Amino acid sequence: MSLQFASRLNNVETSAIRELFKLLGKPGIISFAGGFPDPAMFDVEGIKDASSKALTEDPAAALQYGATEGYSPLREELASFMGTKGVAVNANQLIVTTGSQQALDLLGKTMISPGDKVIVEGPTFLATIQCFRLYGAELISAPCDGLGVKTDELEQLIAQHKPKFVYLIPTFGNPSGALLSLERRKKVLELAVQYNTLIVEDDPYGDLYFNELPPPSLIALSSSVPGSRDLIAYCGSLSKVLSPGLRVGWMVAQPDLLAKATMCKQFSDAHTSTFAQATAAQYLLAGRMPATLDNVRTVYAERAKAMGDALTRELGDAVEFTQPQGGLFFWARLTGKGGKISDASEFARRAIAQGVAFVPGAPFYAANPDTATFRLSFATADVAKIEEGVGRLARALRADSSAPQV
Amino acid sequence: MSLQFASRLNNVETSAIRELFKLLGKPGIISFAGGFPDPAMFDVEGIKDASSKALTEDPAAALQYGATEGYSPLREELASFMGTKGVAVNANQLIVTTGSQQALDLLGKTMISPGDKVIVEGPTFLATIQCFRLYGAELISAPCDGLGVKTDELEQLIAQHKPKFVYLIPTFGNPSGALLSLERRKKVLELAVQYNTLIVEDDPYGDLYFNELPPPSLIALSSSVPGSRDLIAYCGSLSKVLSPGLRVGWMVAQPDLLAKATMCKQFSDAHTSTFAQATAAQYLLAGRMPATLDNVRTVYAERAKAMGDALTRELGDAVEFTQPQGGLFFWARLTGKGGKISDASEFARRAIAQGVAFVPGAPFYAANPDTATFRLSFATADVAKIEEGVGRLARALRADSSAPQV
Repeated sequence: MSLQFASRLNNVETSAIRELFKLLGKPGIISFAGGFPDPAMFDVEGIKDASSKALTEDPAAALQYGATEGYSPLREELASFMGTKGVAVNANQLIVTTGSQQALDLLGKTMISPGDKVIVEGPTFLATIQCFRLYGAELISAPCDGLGVKTDELEQLIAQHKPKFVYLIPTFGNPSGALLSLERRKKVLELAVQYNTLIVEDDPYGDLYFNELPPPSLIALSSSVPGSRDLIAYCGSLSKVLSPGLRVGWMVAQPDLLAKATMCKQFSDAHTSTFAQATAAQYLLAGRMPATLDNVRTVYAERAKAMGDALTRELGDAVEFTQPQGGLFFWARLTGKGGKISDASEFARRAIAQGVAFVPGAPFYAANPDTATFRLSFATADVAKIEEGVGRLARALRADSSAPQV
Repeated sequence: MSLQFASRLNNVETSAIRELFKLLGKPGIISFAGGFPDPAMFDVEGIKDASSKALTEDPAAALQYGATEGYSPLREELASFMGTKGVAVNANQLIVTTGSQQALDLLGKTMISPGDKVIVEGPTFLATIQCFRLYGAELISAPCDGLGVKTDELEQLIAQHKPKFVYLIPTFGNPSGALLSLERRKKVLELAVQYNTLIVEDDPYGDLYFNELPPPSLIALSSSVPGSRDLIAYCGSLSKVLSPGLRVGWMVAQPDLLAKATMCKQFSDAHTSTFAQATAAQYLLAGRMPATLDNVRTVYAERAKAMGDALTRELGDAVEFTQPQGGLFFWARLTGKGGKISDASEFARRAIAQGVAFVPGAPFYAANPDTATFRLSFATADVAKIEEGVGRLARALRADSSAPQV
């Protein structure tokens, strides 16, 4: 029997990335393809202690149904954590979500009627594109450069399309690695107020800065732009700094939106695992987060530097990129100089043949893909692997199209 | 600024139950209102051991991103668990969900286009009604009695409405407590084949039988009705037997449906907490589930008997009910005999004034509510509390409407 599925499924297409990930199983491959943190940096002992405490101090709470809004002690700890990042927020002004992916899903469910327009960065997080399209959104792609979204063009798009909201990853974006400048951040907040437009700030990478503190998040800056705070929905996550497997994210938003999102969450998964929430709460309470953040910042900074140096040394003017100041990703572009290829999908196929994997950039665009772009993650390979992997990229670049293909 | 929310939110109404639960905070109240298991029966030591093992044996897997379909060792264990219940299923024929609530959400997202019809039992699980309405479903309510859904009337409704699917809780339903008879189970499977209609079998309570084994689940029985297996989407859960806080459920379905639901899950929450999944896998692997099930069956059986005896003794012919043979709930109806009230909402208000809480039945109907019905949970109060609580119900029944109100 073949089923008649919901019409909303016609809006999504997942084949591009699925095809690519099928190629990653090859033995000996060095992967710059993933979007996940290095498991070697997980604070396993700290999480084990936290979990044990959660199951000892209040097992009934950790194992029972909980409030849809989240486990109160975790909401308190997350509010304090936001406080350390310059955001004054009470526990009842945020809800816990099952990873920040669920925050995106709840925003889609709560806000998007079929045919509504949503502005995203070009390029943006792949799963955001699909998530919002499943709710019937028409996505508008706003141009970006190394300093993030171009605010002049963003303003034109807002004025023209009157979007339901604008979705941004302002700090070390995925895939762009870009850091939105302070000046542009202020402009985004002014645009929010001027056009009465909700801004979704997705911020899973903001804690992963290398040397200098990045500019404040949009929600932190909103205190300096009257009327803007209620127009920010902020999505945070422990996935990139502590553990993705906990699936603990959170959303800060104005009360009406938070109440509607909570209602939608009630019927999505009732609540996020209280077991994971209580463990995260105990972890934060134990005061281990600052040391954990220091550690991941140090290691990722070293890897990012190694990758940037190797790319410059090995690939020269055949690629261009902005050296990331945080996060997990390089976003690079094939220039085609010196007669080298400029199609990143072809480059990815040649790279696999040379034993190194990455993700071509085209699927990250909701519209008008730049097919010369590609994303490299430096998170999970150590410095030696990064140097070897970039060497293989250079060989892939030199290989002609008659080289062995996968 | 007031936001313009998605039009789908106009389809849901949550005030009825929220209002009621606000009343439950009163000190000294005996609650028959909740739908959750007794936390005193959680196997805390077993879960602590399982969690510790998960973080010791393969911490990188337990704390990292995982496959959307679920953590492989857990899928294997759940397939074995289904095997003990007469269902032949491979690990790749099920996906893990964030509680069975998420399975319902994924079925809604995958299957329901706005305006599609879905048949549910009258009464049915409240969060199912709201979940499917958020996807734009028009719900049709099928009449039930003490033996579950009336299959003759179900057939008429299927023929008339050509629903996208039929949603049933055949075994110890919430709120009905009813056990669908073997004869009716076979008829449901025949109807599925005859009308080429998907049946969603929600089965969180099937393991909680008291004395006799219930009839096989629909999916177990499907092997005896050719063509029916592919027409069953089965939703299982560890919430009622092990711990709701883990948020571990699963769905068994035909490959096409499972693939679409997996895609939708990818954009809903990426995957269920691998930390919770690895813990659940270790728990099942440790072989502790049979003893845990024996324990909860014994305790709930005792409480159900105590509640049935007390209701008969204290309330006499003012209420009618079928003694449940498993699950967590009594479903009762005010007869109005002896000049007693027959409005369960009024009864609930009087009961609160007497220090006992329960949920009136009307909100559990997608249409045509029977306002004389109400649900009593016997799960969380011990026998002494149950007897005291039913005594208070009797006083509430005798109280006239000038009694103190909350």
